[in-house]
Amino acid sequence: MKKDLVIVLAPDSFKESMTAKEACEAMERGVKKVNNNITCIHVPMADGGEGTMQSLVDATGGAVYSIKVTGPLGNEVEASYGILGDGETGILEMASASGIHLVPIEKRNPLITTTYGTGQLIKGCLDSGVKRLIIGIGGSATNDGGAGVIQALGGRLLDKDGSELKFGGGQLGQLDRIDLEKLDKRLSNIDIEVACDVTNPLCGERGASYVFGPQKGATPEMVKALDGNLEHYGEIIKKQLGKDIIDVPGAGAAGGLGAGLMAVLNGNLKKGIDIVIEYSGLEDKIKDADMVWTGEGSMDFQTQYGKTPLGVAVVAKKYNKPVIALAGRVGDDAEVLYDKGIDSIFCIMKGVTSLEEALEKGKENVEKTAENIIRLMNLL
Amino acid sequence: MKKDLVIVLAPDSFKESMTAKEACEAMERGVKKVNNNITCIHVPMADGGEGTMQSLVDATGGAVYSIKVTGPLGNEVEASYGILGDGETGILEMASASGIHLVPIEKRNPLITTTYGTGQLIKGCLDSGVKRLIIGIGGSATNDGGAGVIQALGGRLLDKDGSELKFGGGQLGQLDRIDLEKLDKRLSNIDIEVACDVTNPLCGERGASYVFGPQKGATPEMVKALDGNLEHYGEIIKKQLGKDIIDVPGAGAAGGLGAGLMAVLNGNLKKGIDIVIEYSGLEDKIKDADMVWTGEGSMDFQTQYGKTPLGVAVVAKKYNKPVIALAGRVGDDAEVLYDKGIDSIFCIMKGVTSLEEALEKGKENVEKTAENIIRLMNLL
Repeated sequence: MKKDLVIVLAPDSFKESMTAKEACEAMERGVKKVNNNITCIHVPMADGGEGTMQSLVDATGGAVYSIKVTGPLGNEVEASYGILGDGETGILEMASASGIHLVPIEKRNPLITTTYGTGQLIKGCLDSGVKRLIIGIGGSATNDGGAGVIQALGGRLLDKDGSELKFGGGQLGQLDRIDLEKLDKRLSNIDIEVACDVTNPLCGERGASYVFGPQKGATPEMVKALDGNLEHYGEIIKKQLGKDIIDVPGAGAAGGLGAGLMAVLNGNLKKGIDIVIEYSGLEDKIKDADMVWTGEGSMDFQTQYGKTPLGVAVVAKKYNKPVIALAGRVGDDAEVLYDKGIDSIFCIMKGVTSLEEALEKGKENVEKTAENIIRLMNLL
Repeated sequence: MKKDLVIVLAPDSFKESMTAKEACEAMERGVKKVNNNITCIHVPMADGGEGTMQSLVDATGGAVYSIKVTGPLGNEVEASYGILGDGETGILEMASASGIHLVPIEKRNPLITTTYGTGQLIKGCLDSGVKRLIIGIGGSATNDGGAGVIQALGGRLLDKDGSELKFGGGQLGQLDRIDLEKLDKRLSNIDIEVACDVTNPLCGERGASYVFGPQKGATPEMVKALDGNLEHYGEIIKKQLGKDIIDVPGAGAAGGLGAGLMAVLNGNLKKGIDIVIEYSGLEDKIKDADMVWTGEGSMDFQTQYGKTPLGVAVVAKKYNKPVIALAGRVGDDAEVLYDKGIDSIFCIMKGVTSLEEALEKGKENVEKTAENIIRLMNLL
């Protein structure tokens, strides 16, 4: 092995155990224990899901800000957005303000949950003077088509009597008019990229309500009502805003938030991993490296569908760089990843263990696994 | 990596999951999946403990024979001995005939348990025409100083009245005379090597009864009686056979069986791993190899004290060969092994798992780990 190796460390977070940045740090500790001449370049990654804001903030040297916003049930919650190291790019995850984890199981009811808080996070970014925005939209508690976001940013959703609609997907059936006159003017100068990995349309059997409604607490009757409401909402958007988004792939993401962001905020839906790769500068860093390490809490055949290790591997293989992955769990079927650019996969577990202990010892185990990988490489 | 690598595979068994031979096979499957040009030389190992007979039989292409013998409590049990591939070396583990696992906890009583069955196994080997014998003596249920072995081979242990002693360490206090006239004559032409990793003397606070008696079911009173009996036994041996073995390190092994084998059968006590290294031909095979793989079910700081992976590493380092270890469990303190010749250690676990599942999937996990190690080596 050449002694002054340059390794790009580009793992996702290991969920509930460590952030992507912490995974990078643990990897480097293990590497440096064996060979202090190796250069480790940290590129904490994410795939658009939970942890994406933190990873891109970490990858670019940005900062995170916390503000109080309206949660999915109308109560106040603490949520956060980030500003990347360029000072011009805001980033937020809708789940931070409007996520399903904020609603206790017995209170889950997409008839009334709102994305209003997500709109307030967007406003927070605008107040920070950003020129572009990245919005991750996984893990929603809502089915309101992004109505709350529009309302939080000054748009008005009115019924026949000209009254503002209340919160929740259950209200959209009464929508008569969308009034964007007072919509925050700053939005027109902002590029919005939406990290979205689902391709569901807004309505119908494959739409937001039928596919994702039940896991947000919707009964079959509620699903039917919510679906009808989103269809009505889509028709009004088509008629009044001239945008036909009902069948656009991803319109049904996050309870129809995909549709709202496309129609009202001119958001571009992209794969989460592609956005992260772009904004983290991963490709430039890989170009000049000798080797790439990635990883994630769990890796299996699903890793090939838009997950971080695969996205990293695709970039690495463009430049013919070896790719090693570390994971807390390596599924029986992870071998499919060998053909997709991941050269070798190491599980970080050190024996029979409980989930609790595995999560607690995650960093230590990443460090030790990294150490032994370099020890092996050193032999050759 | 050079493509026609020669790797010596020299693991111990992974207890309750796979024999050493099966571990070799699993490693080779993983290696060959990646590179069919690598030559794998199987040297299934052991350290003198459980599995030693099977590993040396496997390493040399020998055979195992089962016979019915007298168990520790006097009942009949099925036990086995092996003949190594040379056709001249017999091998047996005392635990097979006289082991603690053959006695239910509530019946454990070293006053009455006998090594008679172990003597019958030795006789089995003699009947097969061996020129030398390897005897592993871990895991005994007995405290009889090897009296049962002597009796099974034709020796007589007589009391004052000239009556044969009954079975068990509780009888030795009545020993008056050891009569070896009818001892199997074939024993005089046989070299006996005893695999023994403890250094306890026959009697006293560090002796067989005090240190190992309690775990065989002895109460404090029984321990005292057993210790007195072994001392008496040692004195008679000294007086009548002219051999003073009471304080020889290892005399107290296996309830004093160490003493009996030394005094009556002229056995040589050696470290188990050294015997296995010698008879497996490990050193010759390592000399011409590029790399050595070892491993064991569990590896930690204790591995440095006479365990297989360390013994293998010491031989490998004599020839400056890289050593990789695979283990089901890698203890927090396994790092001490790096300085002792084990270059890199990989845990075979693939995630959070129960012990049951880990044991069941052991071979598969060894195979996959081996595969990924070669995949990594292939990159360099």
